[in-house]
Amino acid sequence: MTPPQNTLRQVTFGIDIGGTNTAFGIVDRDGNCLADDTIPTLAHEPITLFLPRLYDRMRLLWHNVEDRCVLQGIGIGAPSANYYTGTIEQPPNLNWGQVVHLKRIVEEEFAVPVALTNDANAAALGEMLFGAARGMKHFIIITLGTGLGSGIVVNGDVLYGADGFAGELGHTIVDPNGRMCGCGRRGCLETYVSASGIRRTVLSLLAEYTDDSIFRRTEPNAINAADIARAALAGDVIAHRAFEQTGELLGRKLADVIACFSPEAIILFGGLAASGDLILAPTQRAMEENTLHIFKGKTTLLVSSLMNHNAAVLGAAALIWKDLTAATASLTTQKQ
Amino acid sequence: MTPPQNTLRQVTFGIDIGGTNTAFGIVDRDGNCLADDTIPTLAHEPITLFLPRLYDRMRLLWHNVEDRCVLQGIGIGAPSANYYTGTIEQPPNLNWGQVVHLKRIVEEEFAVPVALTNDANAAALGEMLFGAARGMKHFIIITLGTGLGSGIVVNGDVLYGADGFAGELGHTIVDPNGRMCGCGRRGCLETYVSASGIRRTVLSLLAEYTDDSIFRRTEPNAINAADIARAALAGDVIAHRAFEQTGELLGRKLADVIACFSPEAIILFGGLAASGDLILAPTQRAMEENTLHIFKGKTTLLVSSLMNHNAAVLGAAALIWKDLTAATASLTTQKQ
Repeated sequence: MTPPQNTLRQVTFGIDIGGTNTAFGIVDRDGNCLADDTIPTLAHEPITLFLPRLYDRMRLLWHNVEDRCVLQGIGIGAPSANYYTGTIEQPPNLNWGQVVHLKRIVEEEFAVPVALTNDANAAALGEMLFGAARGMKHFIIITLGTGLGSGIVVNGDVLYGADGFAGELGHTIVDPNGRMCGCGRRGCLETYVSASGIRRTVLSLLAEYTDDSIFRRTEPNAINAADIARAALAGDVIAHRAFEQTGELLGRKLADVIACFSPEAIILFGGLAASGDLILAPTQRAMEENTLHIFKGKTTLLVSSLMNHNAAVLGAAALIWKDLTAATASLTTQKQ
Repeated sequence: MTPPQNTLRQVTFGIDIGGTNTAFGIVDRDGNCLADDTIPTLAHEPITLFLPRLYDRMRLLWHNVEDRCVLQGIGIGAPSANYYTGTIEQPPNLNWGQVVHLKRIVEEEFAVPVALTNDANAAALGEMLFGAARGMKHFIIITLGTGLGSGIVVNGDVLYGADGFAGELGHTIVDPNGRMCGCGRRGCLETYVSASGIRRTVLSLLAEYTDDSIFRRTEPNAINAADIARAALAGDVIAHRAFEQTGELLGRKLADVIACFSPEAIILFGGLAASGDLILAPTQRAMEENTLHIFKGKTTLLVSSLMNHNAAVLGAAALIWKDLTAATASLTTQKQ
């Protein structure tokens, strides 16, 4: 039996497409996640294989709630996504080709409105509405995943810039002669400060120093950020130095970011941020040491308060609520 | 005889306080500058000597127009000025102490409303209302004077950040082990890219190379950016290399700025920008070479169209118009 229309909970899908995993959830207006799931993104897979895998699992999830919910729309956070055009353009870490009209494709599949933004912008929206940035008008979220993403909020709005792609702090340069980046250039911040960046730092430290380390007996491709954190906590000198160097570079860059944006807070999110003081202590130290005097002590370094409740999923869900506000308000009025 | 009130032209003073000179003008609502003048700032002078000098010359200027104008307010662009608080805080290139309540002080002197912003923000407003950025919502102005200032416009508004001081691109770091900066740190962009920066580059090139140069027979303190430009055009190899290096560093930094803000245009303003292709060509080349693929070709590098009509004076004048709009509109209505 179909329940009466007015007892149904209005929900949206929030989807966070990352370089490694894609997380998605069914979220209500208050940011409650009613059900969620994760699939591997398989970055080398074409999108024509990825989407059917995602659709299947979204429908499975939906079966859990369909007797009590009505789907209002789908919000997606993804690398190189453009809010203005609803497309994903040349994602450096995904094998999806030049331009994918993801908004249009997903709208055709589910027949509900779809909105699209960069995954880090989605995380920023999540933090602003439901997390550590509630009430803030000026803040920046740094997402430390496979790469480094950033969502920048100015005057309470996500900074999209002229073309919709603003906020690529991960591709600002740390060292013009530095590490090769997936984008084809050298020395991008994300080649040092990210899950893959800290792995490269471990390899470089193994070359530079003679200290013993568990990573001298580990296949390089098998090293991940969580292993490095565990090793550092267990006293592995190389692993500990890797966190120190990573935090030092991140903190120096954040001092530059503060000089540009003067935000109330910078929020770290993602795997590396989960390693707590290992990354926070050197980041905070380098940030404070390198901040221009007029900004000293003004910007708070925080860890996301939504680490266990994927900020980007909640933010992506909120993105579509934002677009739907007017329509839904009118619908609600009619029902009452 | 006093002319009838409704034939008087409504004007504001726009004042641009720079590290070397202070320019000021009497400006109407359409951006016409009716009269203007300049005094040396004398950076080492305390503000208690500077202000009486400025007031005297402002009053002299006012005498030229007072029979046909009515003063509505005063807008000021100045280094380290804070729009939110109306203060100037710890200006690194001026001997004015910790905090100067300039808005309050000038309001008491002239008994009209005063508004204050960073000199580069004032230039941004000038470009947006009367210059090269008319109609743009996302652009950045780089002012190349004694130091390097930046005014950043996002969604049609100047970016002030949480504390009013955002937009200090001149104090982002080019080289952590680089040149000492007036701010007490090393390697700030403005120690390379500014009138004083290019002079330091000439000195460093004189040390590095053996080429003859006019600057081997010039007292270092007497070298200025215009001399370097003239020498470069006359075939001085050291001077030419100095422009190449300056443009290269600026262009690389602008590529980072594009990754953050994705602006429609970046506008160069000030003495160094006046040297045309000497600085523009290497800047443009380095900017294009280093821009992340998704942003390539999207941001136009421009020279201010207000170089002969001080953008910062017009912008400062416009700043106070903005604040006065409501009040003046009501006044105009009453008069008609």
